[in-house]
Amino acid sequence: MSGEDAPAQQQNAEEQKQQQQETKTPAESPKTESKPDPPPTSASTEAAAAAAADTPAPAAEKAPEEDTFSYRALVLTGYGGYDKVKLQVKKGKPALKSGEVMVRVKVCGLNFADLMARQGLYDRLPSPPVTPGMECSGIIEAVGEDVTDRKVGDKVLVLNRSGLWQEVVVVATTHTFLMPEGMSFEEAAALPVNYITAYMMLFDFGHLRPNQSVLVHMAAGGVGIAATQLCKTVNDVTVFGTASASKHEVISQGGVTHPIDYRTRDYVEEIRKISPKGLDIVLDPLGGSDTHKGYNLLKPMGKLISYGAANMLAGQKKNLFAVAKTWYQQFSVHTLSLIQGNRSVCGFHLGYLDSESELIAQAMAVIMDLYKQGKIKPRIDSTYHLEQVGDAMRRMQERHNIGKIILTTEPMKEEEKKEEAKKDEEKKKDDKKKDDKKKDDKKKDEAKKDEAKKEEKKKEETKKDDKKAEEKKEEVKKEEN
Amino acid sequence: MSGEDAPAQQQNAEEQKQQQQETKTPAESPKTESKPDPPPTSASTEAAAAAAADTPAPAAEKAPEEDTFSYRALVLTGYGGYDKVKLQVKKGKPALKSGEVMVRVKVCGLNFADLMARQGLYDRLPSPPVTPGMECSGIIEAVGEDVTDRKVGDKVLVLNRSGLWQEVVVVATTHTFLMPEGMSFEEAAALPVNYITAYMMLFDFGHLRPNQSVLVHMAAGGVGIAATQLCKTVNDVTVFGTASASKHEVISQGGVTHPIDYRTRDYVEEIRKISPKGLDIVLDPLGGSDTHKGYNLLKPMGKLISYGAANMLAGQKKNLFAVAKTWYQQFSVHTLSLIQGNRSVCGFHLGYLDSESELIAQAMAVIMDLYKQGKIKPRIDSTYHLEQVGDAMRRMQERHNIGKIILTTEPMKEEEKKEEAKKDEEKKKDDKKKDDKKKDDKKKDEAKKDEAKKEEKKKEETKKDDKKAEEKKEEVKKEEN
Repeated sequence: MSGEDAPAQQQNAEEQKQQQQETKTPAESPKTESKPDPPPTSASTEAAAAAAADTPAPAAEKAPEEDTFSYRALVLTGYGGYDKVKLQVKKGKPALKSGEVMVRVKVCGLNFADLMARQGLYDRLPSPPVTPGMECSGIIEAVGEDVTDRKVGDKVLVLNRSGLWQEVVVVATTHTFLMPEGMSFEEAAALPVNYITAYMMLFDFGHLRPNQSVLVHMAAGGVGIAATQLCKTVNDVTVFGTASASKHEVISQGGVTHPIDYRTRDYVEEIRKISPKGLDIVLDPLGGSDTHKGYNLLKPMGKLISYGAANMLAGQKKNLFAVAKTWYQQFSVHTLSLIQGNRSVCGFHLGYLDSESELIAQAMAVIMDLYKQGKIKPRIDSTYHLEQVGDAMRRMQERHNIGKIILTTEPMKEEEKKEEAKKDEEKKKDDKKKDDKKKDDKKKDEAKKDEAKKEEKKKEETKKDDKKAEEKKEEVKKEEN
Repeated sequence: MSGEDAPAQQQNAEEQKQQQQETKTPAESPKTESKPDPPPTSASTEAAAAAAADTPAPAAEKAPEEDTFSYRALVLTGYGGYDKVKLQVKKGKPALKSGEVMVRVKVCGLNFADLMARQGLYDRLPSPPVTPGMECSGIIEAVGEDVTDRKVGDKVLVLNRSGLWQEVVVVATTHTFLMPEGMSFEEAAALPVNYITAYMMLFDFGHLRPNQSVLVHMAAGGVGIAATQLCKTVNDVTVFGTASASKHEVISQGGVTHPIDYRTRDYVEEIRKISPKGLDIVLDPLGGSDTHKGYNLLKPMGKLISYGAANMLAGQKKNLFAVAKTWYQQFSVHTLSLIQGNRSVCGFHLGYLDSESELIAQAMAVIMDLYKQGKIKPRIDSTYHLEQVGDAMRRMQERHNIGKIILTTEPMKEEEKKEEAKKDEEKKKDDKKKDDKKKDDKKKDEAKKDEAKKEEKKKEETKKDDKKAEEKKEEVKKEEN
């Protein structure tokens, strides 16, 4: 289905570097850019397309090209930390079946499922060694038999179950979508997973209408920002968004009506203060105890839409305690409870929807229209080279991003590489320190919260005492009268 | 809130009959009819309205009227069989609070919840003695203070948590809806519960769209017929409807694409034959094991909407075995299962939504529009007098109805009453026989099913045998060659 089926070679870091320098990407391949109109496809890609399209070419000419055809690919070599995703070189031109296209990839999108997959917590990714990646953008370099709706040179975004974090991918045309005029490759790679997820949750399961209220967790994340923008396409929708305080300004500008710092506040209390009756829609990427909270926040006819278990992710490697706790606290509901509350509980994950081409095409058509109308626009947080995928994943997992993190296939410059190597060493040393500090911070946070609670209790008690004293005074007065 | 708050008197059957003959309804009260334009409100009701509206009236005049004001009401006197709902006479004029209206009731609707309530299985009905009834139609006879949007003489349909099975009801104006031109009182009483239920399930939770498929259980019931008609307002919706074979012609004419006789067929198999991928929406009024079946029939992005537990009802009195079985088999689901299936499970019951006036008003506005456009029309199965409420409930519980069963407040004629009394005696005798016969029938049905299964198995085995024989022949042939 995709390039990952081509023979992948596992190499040690040294071999890998060497090969990269030897092979790199062909000089003619177009450079990554965000301009609306890229240069026309180069001669070399045209030739490749012709070869792939089964035009009668002399065998002598074909053989050398297939031998020399190689491309860089990220490969998950086993479950674990950031270093389990390695940059490797795949050799040999992937075969094109009927109805498939070959895409020269420019930019790839990073998703939460990729983080789960690295830890072995996402069953839609085949077993390692495997190339991850659910979305990318690029240019069609060759088309298979019976492909009439795509041609060489078309700029497309691609959505697939996996296998898109590499320079060349082969997918069915139904998994590609033409990029509209004016869309950059960065935006195109940032769009499919987050916006289809947000769109189908809000409008199919959620049936969002004017004057309703929505809770968006991780409002500064990819889905969070997409959901906020989509909420704003409907009149007078109130968006409650959780994010750490430093991100509030950005998400407010993006459309969040009430940003809530979940680190220092109880978001349930904050929401009840503003909207005592509760909410119409809760989007829940967290799982565990947060799903229970979300359910209890629903108004009559409210919908809880669960689309992940981010609470399972705690740290770089699989945290069995976090996984077990999230699993143990997993929400389950009886129909009788749903009936008495007039509520709906939905589950969504695009990864399990990959065979539903028609549904996805319909959603994508609406999303593209909204993009053309300027009503939605992916927000890019940061761009990393394929070589830096570990840093990219770290940024996402530590929740530093505001918007989408993307990977560019443009190779790193030599001087950048050297700097990276130095940084890498430092980072590894830092990792342990950070983990320790995090634990400390958490303890401090909890201590602070406890203190605050105690403080409040004291105040209440003082108030009560005051009240009692007052009442006594009044009683005395009455008796005096 | 409603007439049920007026002093209800529990009487034995003899007292009751006597009182009815003595008091009846005033001769001036308008007779039940289905003509679009009823005669203008009588002088007596106008006078009553004036009195209720706190116009300064001499105390001497007021007192006698309050003394003589009486009206017939159905009262659930305790949980149990059909005879627990008794016709009684309530005395004294109900007080009108601000924002309330008094309605002279013409027709009442019968609902499944009323059957559950009689057996003590519906917690939204206050404890007996209490007047049941969630919907009715009639004419406004008096308006309370601050009522500006309703006036005496308005024809309205009424939706309330309970208390509407009586000749006079007092409700908040928000629970009344003006009947459109051309709607009969019968239609008006048949409309609110069934159509709001079907509408909110299909369009709010279900988000029904063109080309989708819907399973409607009890397709000849009130909600079933409403749901079918509403499905037909959307292009190319396929409706699978379960009902016994004798009702198939009517429900097919009403819009059911594939009627399925659930008594002789496995509806899951039948649906899979026609729609191997499953369904977009399953409306489930049954509960128990049928909810599991419905869930497993869902396509990706499919919605299961549970709105009752009709499987709990087996026989006239509470059947503890049926209740326990339905309860035990009650469907519960984990969010992870929902996520992996991209599914939604919803619960709906209008009885728990009675404080959501705005939501209900919005739904009702759309329903009234559809009625005016001729796109929906309640189908009346049969009309009973208040005296015959037992027969009405029996018809519904035994699933003999096709469409809505309604009660008219028009008093029975003397000769009808005598006939009824005779029939009653016979019915009571029949009841035991019927129950016994039912058990026998069930056994026979099961025996038949078993036989059919055995037959099919035999056929398959014969086929297999034939195949094997053929294969052997071929092998022999090969060997011969």
